Formats: sequence, structure tokens, C-alpha cells
Amino acid sequence: MGSMKKIIECVPNFSEGRDLDKIEKIVTPFRGREGVKLLDYQRDEDHNRLVVTILGEPEAIREAVVGAVGVAVDVIDMRQHQGQHPRMGAVDVIPFIPVRNVTMEEAVELSKDVAKAVWKTYRFPVFLYEASATDPMRKDLANIRKGQFEGMAEKLKLPEWKPDFGEGQIHPTAGVVAIGARMPLVAFNVNLDTNNLEIANKIAKAVRHISGGLRYCKALAIALKERNIVQVSMNMTDFTKTPLYRVVELIRIEAKHYGVNVVGSEIVGLVPMEALVDAAVYYLGLETFSIEQVLEARIME
Amino acid sequence: MGSMKKIIECVPNFSEGRDLDKIEKIVTPFRGREGVKLLDYQRDEDHNRLVVTILGEPEAIREAVVGAVGVAVDVIDMRQHQGQHPRMGAVDVIPFIPVRNVTMEEAVELSKDVAKAVWKTYRFPVFLYEASATDPMRKDLANIRKGQFEGMAEKLKLPEWKPDFGEGQIHPTAGVVAIGARMPLVAFNVNLDTNNLEIANKIAKAVRHISGGLRYCKALAIALKERNIVQVSMNMTDFTKTPLYRVVELIRIEAKHYGVNVVGSEIVGLVPMEALVDAAVYYLGLETFSIEQVLEARIME
Repeated sequence: MGSMKKIIECVPNFSEGRDLDKIEKIVTPFRGREGVKLLDYQRDEDHNRLVVTILGEPEAIREAVVGAVGVAVDVIDMRQHQGQHPRMGAVDVIPFIPVRNVTMEEAVELSKDVAKAVWKTYRFPVFLYEASATDPMRKDLANIRKGQFEGMAEKLKLPEWKPDFGEGQIHPTAGVVAIGARMPLVAFNVNLDTNNLEIANKIAKAVRHISGGLRYCKALAIALKERNIVQVSMNMTDFTKTPLYRVVELIRIEAKHYGVNVVGSEIVGLVPMEALVDAAVYYLGLETFSIEQVLEARIME
Repeated sequence: MGSMKKIIECVPNFSEGRDLDKIEKIVTPFRGREGVKLLDYQRDEDHNRLVVTILGEPEAIREAVVGAVGVAVDVIDMRQHQGQHPRMGAVDVIPFIPVRNVTMEEAVELSKDVAKAVWKTYRFPVFLYEASATDPMRKDLANIRKGQFEGMAEKLKLPEWKPDFGEGQIHPTAGVVAIGARMPLVAFNVNLDTNNLEIANKIAKAVRHISGGLRYCKALAIALKERNIVQVSMNMTDFTKTPLYRVVELIRIEAKHYGVNVVGSEIVGLVPMEALVDAAVYYLGLETFSIEQVLEARIME
């Protein structure tokens, strides 16, 4: 058996959601490249922003991303940019997400390699964020981005906001970019057989990290008006440590207290295979199971 | 988004388990071929048999399999073959198994294409079996293979045993081969907290098709002596119609009747992603979920 192929996801956000010619140019480095799969790209005119999702081998991803950053620095002038979404750079943020056979440490390394190349090649300064952050202040993107493009020239002069790669000034037209590694997010919602939002609120509080619940769970309550029920809407920020089955079973237990039942759930968007395999292993009671037993996993060796 | 890549599994069985040179020659057509992944090959000296597992795109699989059959017809002389496993040909059986984006009808077509090529190229006669069978008598491999290599010359003279491809005689050294399409098998075992084999027997009878249970479940009871417990050992012959969760929940219910509990389970060998995703969807209560939401599934587009 060969060694397992490493697979990483990357979701770069570009500050161009309107000019289709420019968007095509930015996306070109992700097309037809061995080892890179362009999964999706979505532009938003109001946000004036482009979100690209790619998947592939770390080395190929690195080259493609550095290439696309070069195009974006060329074609986007942040001095002209307007849009509803907060932003600070022509490429605003580049998260790297380990998917298979890649550790978080390797994803952090990759993010730093890209950051270094982006600074050296384009003189585009970089803040490292999330798992790649060099300072707790820089973990949170919102913290870094505060002041947006228009405030960045002044912000970077502050010693505590010297970029991780770069000097005390922005790129004149491209601004500054945040690059880092983070776990995949799973958007997981659980529906309850009541229309009482207060109950959903209490359950959301019970299961989410911030108010005493599970470490890697963010949760809030929302009403599904059309169905006349309520939902606990969640972001699972590390399903390898807080698995989906744990949160749904905990919600079931909390709901019982109010005479309420779980009636269904949904996963919004993409989810790593492992998050579902974990649930199957738990509920089927599999004593030993390796993801290598999944036929499709073997194709990716 | 591109169209989804078709993936099929093939598990050809060759009548050579001892001569490593010949085995390497037989396996060569599966190596380094674009679109074909050699997952495994296991030889058994007592059976004097080689079982190869490959995965890939239908067209590439077709070419590789026809190539390997040619090698086997060349290097194996069934007149000299001895082994414990029943067999009738140098290549004994070639099942094609749909894995992703392939219908059973397409797998049947592929099996017939291979059968036709094998007969035309090597004058190696073929019985179509399982889902490819042209007659109910020919669905079951054991039925076709009865008489084994030594009895096949006479058997093929019978009008009802004229091969699907070929005439009323065997290949003088290679015999005859069975080729067909079937669903993936999942070997699924469920452990009980008793050492009473009679209870496992009753539960096996309750859940298996033949004695009144689930349509695509074969089951028998075995003792796990070292652990001092018993097991219901199963072959799930179509997990898309009889899913794993249904059989484990049914076993739980049957076991209750004897005051016995399910304490664990195992999947032996490979399993398609879909079988596990089905379990996750059921137990997490996912209201809508598409396998396209699985990140890794997108790589295979």
C-alpha cells in the first residue's frame, strides 16, 4: 500500500464580486492544475466579494494560491473598493483547513509558507491568524480587520500591529491580508417539536461552549416560522473533539426537561467524511474501525 | 461543477496462489495504470488462489481486467491445478461492483463487455452470473461451478449449460469463467453480552432473510471464545436496501426478549462510504443530506 495522500482545503476571499473579467482572471490559477480541485466560487455583488473553495494536495494548493494572490494584487485596487462586507485587502483572508492525513501543524506550516511567499513576491503584508497566530490578539480575524482597509495604514504603524510578514505599512493598492490554519467548521442544526423560542434558547445556552456547554460548539436559537418549530443552530468548530453525536444526544437530553423532542437535523454545506463516520461508529457500536476501511478513502491513497 | 466520476470495484479470483512469478505477471496489468487503483491482492497457498481487489473508472478497469485474464490464460494450466477452494477456470470468477455514480445496469453492461472481449480474444468461455445472469439457474456461482474444472468439459455439452459467450466446450487449459455484476457485500458482526450460542442462533434466524428476516441479510451465530460472548455474524448483500442501522436495531430488539444486550459490532474489510453515511443520516436525524456534501466525495468528481 502506498502512503496516504494529504488533502487540504483552502477558502480564499477576494475583494471583487462585480467585475466578471477580473473574477475569471483570479480563478484561473485554480483551474486545470494537477492536484487542485476547484470546488466552488461564489461572488456577492453587495459584499463585492468572491469566495473560492479549493481542495487538493498541499504543494499544489500552495502554488495555486500564491498565483491567485498575485493576480488579485494586480487587478484589484482597494482605494476604489466598496462593499457591505468588512475587508482590509485585495485578498482579505486565506484559511487553510486540514481535511485528510494533514495535521494542524502541517496546515500552520503551509499557511506560513504562503504568507512568506506572498510578502516576498508581492510586498503584500500578512497577519497570521487562527491556529497560525503569533499572538492571542491575532487569533480572531475580526480583531485584526478592525479599522478595515481605510484604517490599516495608520493601524500598521502601531508596534503591536506590525504584520507577521511585512513592515509598518500596507501595500498601497492591495492593503493587507490575513492567512492562517483552522479546523473545518460544520454547520449543524437541530430541530425541536415546539414553537417556543425560549426553550430553544435555553437548550442553545446549555450546549454551547461560552455558557457552560461543549468546548467546540457555538449555538443560537432560531424560529423556523414556516414549519412553526424552533431550531438550535450551531457551528461545530472542531468535530474531532466535539463530535456531532455528542451534541445531538445532549440536545435530546436537555429537550426532555421541557417535554420537547428532537424531530430532525441538517448539515448545511460541506462536511468532512470523518464527521459522519464518527457518528456511524458511535451509533452502530463499532468496536474497531479505521477510515481506511472506507472504499472511497482508498482511492485517495 | 463537472460531472461525477464513475467508480467501480472489481475482485477477480485467479487459480494461482503459489507461484510468485506467475502472480506478479497476473497483477502487472493492474499496476501504474491511469484510472485503476490496485487496492489489494492476497494469495492463499492451500486454496491455490489469488484474490485481487481493484477500484477505478469503468473503461480503465475493463482494459486492465481483460489484460490480466490474458496473462492468466497464458500462465495457468488448470489440468495441473490443485487446491482446496472450488474452481472451474484459470480466472475463476470476476465480479464487478458499483461503488459511486454507477448503476447496477452499467455494471452489468461492463461485465458483458468484458465477457465478450474475453471470449473473442482468448476463446475463454464465460458464464454470466449474479445480476448479469441470463437465466435464474445461473444467478448463483455455486450452481455454475458445480462439477468444477474436471467436470466442465462434460457439463458444457449440455444444452442448458451452453456458456453465455462460447460454444459447448471449455478452453483446454483455462476452463471456463463466471463474470457478472453484484452489489458490494458488507461483512457486519454484532456482539452480544451472553455466551449462550443458542440465543445468538435465534437472533440470527430472526434477522436473516431465509428464515423470515431482512431481505438482504445473511446471518449465523458464532462463539467468540476468548471474550466469552457470542456474535451474530452477517453478510449484508445490499446495504442500499437493507441498511446497517436497521439490522443492528432489530438485533437489539430481538436480544431484549432474552434479556441480552448489544455490546459492540464490527465491519470486516472494506465498506462503501454510503453505508456509513446512511447510518449517520438515520441516527443524527438528518432531514435532507446529499453525499455531495461530503468533502471527500467532491474530490472524485
